[in-house]
Amino acid sequence: MDAVPYLAALSAIAALALAFFYYKWVEAASPGDERMVFLMTEIQNGAKAFLKKEYTWVAFFVLGMMALLALVITPLASVSYVLGAVLSATAGYVGMTVATMANARTTEAAKDGPGKALPVAFRGGAVMGFSVAGLALLGLMFTYLLFVEWLEVDQAFEIVVAFGLGASTIALFSRVGGGIYTKAADVGADLVGKVEAGIPEDDPRNPATIADNVGDNVGDVAGMGADLFESYAGSIIAPISLVAFASGLTASQAGDDAFLPLLVFPMAIAFVGMIGSIIGSFFVKGGDSTDSKSLSHALHMGTNVAMAITAVATVGIAYWLFGDSDQFQKPWGLAIAVLGGLVAGWALGKTAEFYTSDHFGPVKKIANQTETGPATTILAGISSGMQSVAASVALIVAGVGIAYWGGEQTFVDNSLGGVYGIAVAAIGMLATTGVVVSVDAYGPIADNAGGIAEMADLDPSVREVTDALDSLGNTTAAVAKGFAVGSAALTALALFKSFEFAIAEADPDATLNLNIGEIDVFIGLFLGAALPFLFAALTIDAVGRAAAKMIEEVRRQFREIPGLREGLPGVVPDSARCVEISTEASLREMIMPASLAVVVPLVVGFISVDALGGLLAGSLVTGFALAIFMANSGGAWDNAKKYIEAGAHGGKGSDQHKAAVVGDTVGDPFKDTSGPSMNILIKVMTIVSLVFASAFV
Amino acid sequence: MDAVPYLAALSAIAALALAFFYYKWVEAASPGDERMVFLMTEIQNGAKAFLKKEYTWVAFFVLGMMALLALVITPLASVSYVLGAVLSATAGYVGMTVATMANARTTEAAKDGPGKALPVAFRGGAVMGFSVAGLALLGLMFTYLLFVEWLEVDQAFEIVVAFGLGASTIALFSRVGGGIYTKAADVGADLVGKVEAGIPEDDPRNPATIADNVGDNVGDVAGMGADLFESYAGSIIAPISLVAFASGLTASQAGDDAFLPLLVFPMAIAFVGMIGSIIGSFFVKGGDSTDSKSLSHALHMGTNVAMAITAVATVGIAYWLFGDSDQFQKPWGLAIAVLGGLVAGWALGKTAEFYTSDHFGPVKKIANQTETGPATTILAGISSGMQSVAASVALIVAGVGIAYWGGEQTFVDNSLGGVYGIAVAAIGMLATTGVVVSVDAYGPIADNAGGIAEMADLDPSVREVTDALDSLGNTTAAVAKGFAVGSAALTALALFKSFEFAIAEADPDATLNLNIGEIDVFIGLFLGAALPFLFAALTIDAVGRAAAKMIEEVRRQFREIPGLREGLPGVVPDSARCVEISTEASLREMIMPASLAVVVPLVVGFISVDALGGLLAGSLVTGFALAIFMANSGGAWDNAKKYIEAGAHGGKGSDQHKAAVVGDTVGDPFKDTSGPSMNILIKVMTIVSLVFASAFV
Repeated sequence: MDAVPYLAALSAIAALALAFFYYKWVEAASPGDERMVFLMTEIQNGAKAFLKKEYTWVAFFVLGMMALLALVITPLASVSYVLGAVLSATAGYVGMTVATMANARTTEAAKDGPGKALPVAFRGGAVMGFSVAGLALLGLMFTYLLFVEWLEVDQAFEIVVAFGLGASTIALFSRVGGGIYTKAADVGADLVGKVEAGIPEDDPRNPATIADNVGDNVGDVAGMGADLFESYAGSIIAPISLVAFASGLTASQAGDDAFLPLLVFPMAIAFVGMIGSIIGSFFVKGGDSTDSKSLSHALHMGTNVAMAITAVATVGIAYWLFGDSDQFQKPWGLAIAVLGGLVAGWALGKTAEFYTSDHFGPVKKIANQTETGPATTILAGISSGMQSVAASVALIVAGVGIAYWGGEQTFVDNSLGGVYGIAVAAIGMLATTGVVVSVDAYGPIADNAGGIAEMADLDPSVREVTDALDSLGNTTAAVAKGFAVGSAALTALALFKSFEFAIAEADPDATLNLNIGEIDVFIGLFLGAALPFLFAALTIDAVGRAAAKMIEEVRRQFREIPGLREGLPGVVPDSARCVEISTEASLREMIMPASLAVVVPLVVGFISVDALGGLLAGSLVTGFALAIFMANSGGAWDNAKKYIEAGAHGGKGSDQHKAAVVGDTVGDPFKDTSGPSMNILIKVMTIVSLVFASAFV
Repeated sequence: MDAVPYLAALSAIAALALAFFYYKWVEAASPGDERMVFLMTEIQNGAKAFLKKEYTWVAFFVLGMMALLALVITPLASVSYVLGAVLSATAGYVGMTVATMANARTTEAAKDGPGKALPVAFRGGAVMGFSVAGLALLGLMFTYLLFVEWLEVDQAFEIVVAFGLGASTIALFSRVGGGIYTKAADVGADLVGKVEAGIPEDDPRNPATIADNVGDNVGDVAGMGADLFESYAGSIIAPISLVAFASGLTASQAGDDAFLPLLVFPMAIAFVGMIGSIIGSFFVKGGDSTDSKSLSHALHMGTNVAMAITAVATVGIAYWLFGDSDQFQKPWGLAIAVLGGLVAGWALGKTAEFYTSDHFGPVKKIANQTETGPATTILAGISSGMQSVAASVALIVAGVGIAYWGGEQTFVDNSLGGVYGIAVAAIGMLATTGVVVSVDAYGPIADNAGGIAEMADLDPSVREVTDALDSLGNTTAAVAKGFAVGSAALTALALFKSFEFAIAEADPDATLNLNIGEIDVFIGLFLGAALPFLFAALTIDAVGRAAAKMIEEVRRQFREIPGLREGLPGVVPDSARCVEISTEASLREMIMPASLAVVVPLVVGFISVDALGGLLAGSLVTGFALAIFMANSGGAWDNAKKYIEAGAHGGKGSDQHKAAVVGDTVGDPFKDTSGPSMNILIKVMTIVSLVFASAFV
């Protein structure tokens, strides 16, 4: 049992080795002709410049937080905090660098058909996938071993949680900043380009095209990577901290027989999930068909294999850890909890797919509503997104119920069992993060590849291949979002429970009263419900303001650069200026909403911990609902537009298409800025509360 | 003290007499020429036909509920339930009938300027206002006196609560059904008329114009009236039932010294509020200026006078009831609670005004965003609506906090004081319902008057006068909504607390555990947060489907009736068919969402009362947030459009205007269907739970 953290660390190292292997493999592929290399380099430089600037800004915040942690908690916590932040940033930087190398290489490979291109895009994404999973797990195991096992530090678990806070900080700023960037560029490029100037997407005449492609990388690759780094780390931290805080464990007791299996169980699942992901990643092979079904099959093969391995191994681990002890009974209980999480995550993804894929009713209905103009298109998208909230909440509630029940089965003393079940259910969802993120990062790479094909004036057949790969990416993104938001709810719930225990531990007299009949809890609940709305408003506005700057610049260039709109040979737009504007604007806009997530729980917590409890619960349930609503409405509009572009309801250029573009534009900040930021908001607030719990009382 | 219920009943009778006087006064005014009378009659017949059909459908539901109440609670409860339902329906029918008489009379009076027209519209609305307040208070006092004082029935207070459930039932169906009707007709008329056929609003060629005007009456008059009937009754019931359930009062104890002041305090405030409203209504006099400031001043004079009287009298009542008793101390505490509610309601209204009036930043910003098309217009509206959620929640939370603190000051034993303070704060908001509803019903009458002026081809100067009156209506509607949703939150909170006491009373062993750390409470909370989203989705979809039918019909008529579009003399559209279609469609669509509000708490309650507690809390906070969001986004789009129509950003017919119309259309079901239904959803769920509390355990 003592070997588990080491095994998990080893699997993490293996994942990093795999990431390096894929990096070398991608690097060896040809990036195409001079024009393609130029475009790739432009995108890469833009993306790197953004990340560097972003990290510089965030560094100030990290420093401030470090000081606060050192002062209020313990200096060691600030070390662990910085480690979490630095590793997450590293994973983001590395992954994004390779993703921006893989885009042109995917385009080049697409000349030989999808069978060649799909692995390039996937393996490009896999560098991100395995960097994220590897660095998160390695860092976490190192922190655990260092503080808990080797140094036997008091308050070791508070320090482990601080690692999660570091990851959350990066996730928060990356998601918000990257999300604002990507949509400001996208909206700016679309509104002036497609709507006003009447030129197609990714047209090289459009000055915002490069920025748009940079945005895909900083938002959908780096932002998403940081998000899942944080989710993954959080899902392992939650059950560990739950056990530690519930039992009042300090370092010296960590070896205690009753608790050790509970501490290593999540690590063991992370270990098999990582092994499963590594094996699964080799099952992704391209076929020769551009048929979406077989492409989808090829891509999902990796995830399916990884999940199957994890599922089978989980049952074994549960029996190994809990089968032979009088502290526990019925080991299948916790196995069911983990598998329940896995199934719930999968079902959430499927629900997202149902509501956002043009194979099903909701998107078809939205497309149909374009017949009566943009207003009905918007209404149809909003209502279908809101409906998906009900379906998703039903699923997550079912998952929570099953996991709780499963947990109770295994525990003999049942004060903790149910919540522990919920905590490990989140790991069930995220154990295969390595391959899930690979598949997710594949999407923007394929998207970029299409952009490069367009900008480099390649044969339309190349664009057809990249389009086929890209459309697949939309679905995979929806599925990954399902996992991310589902696990966020479960993890937050478990962390919330840890928070209760932490308060009780910090001051036995100050037990938390979380009765919603009490006025301060209720007030907290109310404020908590309002917070995600405010957060959404701030991020939408941020995109709007940043996009407006972009639009002005694009208009200016079309106005002032003669021959640009007409596409005269030799006339090129000033793309770099657009990249700069997006970078500046999105970084400035990121400060306010991101700070909110950190400052509000601190302020409320120092006033009343009961109110803070209500606040966390209110934000959790409303934030989850808004996250699902915004992600699925946005995804549905996007695909309704693509569905029409594929020829339905009058096709490209029709009034229906124009209505669909309006829907898509509204959906852009929904699905790529506000929505995905929401689950980080929830978790940052919970984890901040947990870390500072002892300081509140 | 024993005289208070009688005094309240007398003031209610005075209100009804006043309503009758205003009815006669309006009837005596001239309805104008033949064409105007014809239009008025068409609208009136359409509206009456709708209400009759609606009430027939609802009757089945009421019968079912009656049976359930008789079976599960007590037959007397079903009597009181039916009384509440019938009185609410009567108020709606009478008020709407007079409103549809007042429209043409307002148009006719507008020929002599706003000074003549404003009182006609206001007094037409005042019939609704004083019917609602009078019948609600009279019915409630009758129920109270009958069951509590004269018959001394056991469970008398459960029976009083059933009166509220009856009112809630009518409110639910009227708001949802009427809300769907009005927007289906409006959207249908706008989309085909303004956008496709390019004819102005209220053009007589448009077959949906009559239906649109009918919709203003069934939605904004009858639906709103039923809503405030329910809110008003609920705000008086909540503190009474709170005291009764908390103290385990049965009829014989009702005279108990300690509790009598608490029981009559809300009735006393209702009494002075009613007297204040009656007096205030005479202060509404038209001037000669069409300047919006002086018109607004004239209209608001009534409310201001009424509120001032109520505020002053409240302090006196508090000292009279609580000043001279050793059960209580510091009478100013409860006075502050009531005034806190009044101020919070006023501030909520002002916030709504800030976010929806074109005098302030948010609407100007939305108008500005029309420059970049409909997508940015939508995004700006959504984000400003979401921002207003944060502001409104802050206000309501402040109101709750002050009322709670105020209540605690007056009570010597403090287990009940704070919540009682919250409950009476809701009465503070609603004591002047008579005049508030009058002002609110004034809006659609002025709107209709404009429609009639347009359709009857009157001199443009008449339309100018009605437009000035109408634009005022938008702001007053926003203010009234602030009161309605604010009081809904406070009332629901108080009823929620009564629910806790009722459970404890019904079965002392089955005390409610509302700790959000418990799994069933949390699951309930989660489901509760999702419910308003589902409700919003269903109502938006309902409007969409009903509007689609309307659009088809209007298109068909333009296609098949030769000369209609061109406006050849003698060619008239088949308006009756459009009215029929709207009626059928909206009634069918109303069933599903309305049933949800009643069925869900019943089902959950019989499974787990703890989960039901969570469900109610979750729905309350999320429903409040969504209600504010949808109402204010919708109102802002509406006024941004009007702002542009008044000449800003290119004015009527410009691309900016088209973008603003898209926003307005999206906002229509937001602000007039889903949003306003939300606070009824919240309260219906709470009151259903409260009535059936004893059956759950």
